[in-house]
Amino acid sequence: MISRNQADIRSLRIVVVNTLLASDADPDDQALQQDERARALRIGLLEAGYNIVAVLPADLHLADRVVQLQPDMVIIDAESDARDVLEHVVIVTREAPRPIVLFTEDQAQSSMEAAMAAGVSAYIVSGLQAERVKPVLDVALARFNADQKLRNELSDTKLKLAERKTVERAKGLLMERHRISEDEAYGRLRRMAMDRNLKLSELAQRMIDIADLLG
Amino acid sequence: MISRNQADIRSLRIVVVNTLLASDADPDDQALQQDERARALRIGLLEAGYNIVAVLPADLHLADRVVQLQPDMVIIDAESDARDVLEHVVIVTREAPRPIVLFTEDQAQSSMEAAMAAGVSAYIVSGLQAERVKPVLDVALARFNADQKLRNELSDTKLKLAERKTVERAKGLLMERHRISEDEAYGRLRRMAMDRNLKLSELAQRMIDIADLLG
Repeated sequence: MISRNQADIRSLRIVVVNTLLASDADPDDQALQQDERARALRIGLLEAGYNIVAVLPADLHLADRVVQLQPDMVIIDAESDARDVLEHVVIVTREAPRPIVLFTEDQAQSSMEAAMAAGVSAYIVSGLQAERVKPVLDVALARFNADQKLRNELSDTKLKLAERKTVERAKGLLMERHRISEDEAYGRLRRMAMDRNLKLSELAQRMIDIADLLG
Repeated sequence: MISRNQADIRSLRIVVVNTLLASDADPDDQALQQDERARALRIGLLEAGYNIVAVLPADLHLADRVVQLQPDMVIIDAESDARDVLEHVVIVTREAPRPIVLFTEDQAQSSMEAAMAAGVSAYIVSGLQAERVKPVLDVALARFNADQKLRNELSDTKLKLAERKTVERAKGLLMERHRISEDEAYGRLRRMAMDRNLKLSELAQRMIDIADLLG
């Protein structure tokens, strides 16, 4: 079983977050050991050949520790309190986007919606059988990549829109002040940006800042 | 079991797509009846209180029939041939965006990636236990809604960018031709759009078309 799976999963480095774990607990903490779910999840991951680099509590330090550890994936085991862990998930997602998989018994629609909004790549209810671990994580990875592509496209488009506004405003300033055509103004902006080794939008922003200062 | 679930799922109308079904088959087709997976899925859905409005083959008519039936969700049962069904899924998603849930044994990474790109809201491998049907579909709905929000934001932003380009170009034409300031050109565009009961970007596009015609 282990050898069959290990061949094709390039040993993903995983951080497991358990909501039962106290902030200052040892990963081999008694409470965690006694928890059936937590044990089943860790066994499932290890049997499937994944590399658990840390077991962490869901607290304020989570985001920092994820940045330090640079895992390929974060797996959260939140038996019935999926919502409570989400504020920390949001921070992890913002600081260092990576796939987050949530195993839970929490079936509340509001928890599911909050998880999607927080960027969770997979929300699995009662799905902790060892033989399903690998396909679930594979789907989560594919989901994460597709989401990232969409989010990157969105932020690129927003940036383009903002830059365009800036460049157009600077062009308008030049056209008005020097009574030149749009093409001439654009050409002048481009030359100034090249001379100063700046992006067109950066040059435009500086020009607007100066015009604002001069009133 | 049925009554407990029926209370909170407002009887979702579901179209089931089965890849084993021939194009001209009866829903009570012998092959389908004999297929263990197909039966398990339909039983799971019915037990959980969902309303199966049709069982369809994955063929060229699928998109049309989904438009006719207006289901709340499309569930695809594609035992090992997830990739083959995706071309039809893409069309369904494009014509009438709705949650699509794919149950399959296909564990290929490429099939998962293709499914995400096609807009599949849930890709479930070996997950056909009756008691998990409801949470799986609930998560799929939440995923679909979150995805739609993101996609709508992206298309809105793209449209804004395109409209802005058009308006800026028309403004530039006016500034150049009439030797007026940016503000004056913008004001003139706005007045012309209001007089003609057009969106600013529509008026701008007409102006550009005419300028192109006149050379």
